[in-house]
Amino acid sequence: MIANTPKPPYASSIFTSIRTDVDEKYDKMDELTFKEIETIKGYLGCETFRDKNGFGVNLSYWKDMNSLKNWKENTLHKKAQILGKEKWYKKYKLRICTVERDYEFVKK
Amino acid sequence: MIANTPKPPYASSIFTSIRTDVDEKYDKMDELTFKEIETIKGYLGCETFRDKNGFGVNLSYWKDMNSLKNWKENTLHKKAQILGKEKWYKKYKLRICTVERDYEFVKK
Repeated sequence: MIANTPKPPYASSIFTSIRTDVDEKYDKMDELTFKEIETIKGYLGCETFRDKNGFGVNLSYWKDMNSLKNWKENTLHKKAQILGKEKWYKKYKLRICTVERDYEFVKK
Repeated sequence: MIANTPKPPYASSIFTSIRTDVDEKYDKMDELTFKEIETIKGYLGCETFRDKNGFGVNLSYWKDMNSLKNWKENTLHKKAQILGKEKWYKKYKLRICTVERDYEFVKK
């Protein structure tokens, strides 16, 4: 679902990635990190996509850069980052953003 | 594929959407807008995802806010925006961002 975010400005992380064909521990870590991220103060929500070719994006939204930094330094997340480089990702790009404006449309 | 973007800062548009089940003219307009966007000065690339439930995201990257504004005001894009509200989208959220930092990993 579309993440329910407050009035800008707020922070966003765009994590675009291409998976390897190694699935070892991936689903379990995915489940654990989604639980863990909810405990981080300032976490606002996320939107996730992965296509059948292993190309995907994880968008996460944050109150400010400080809350995003706390997630970056989270112990479980650091473990996931190491395993990600060792096993799960061929390539990724992480982009750290400030959301400056937004606009929502809902069909009547 | 992961868009090949320059050293930050640059601008980004995050367009997250939920489709209706109306496909009328959608594919044709999709094709036309992807051709048109390439002609806009300052366009850097995009990354697009849509899952089988009609939930998707289009990320586009821009040299600066001015180039993104030129895309916003493009005639074909405006037509697509009107049709999008009339026909193709149940709901969407557009977030306009400044990418402040990025980090890339490529498996050796």
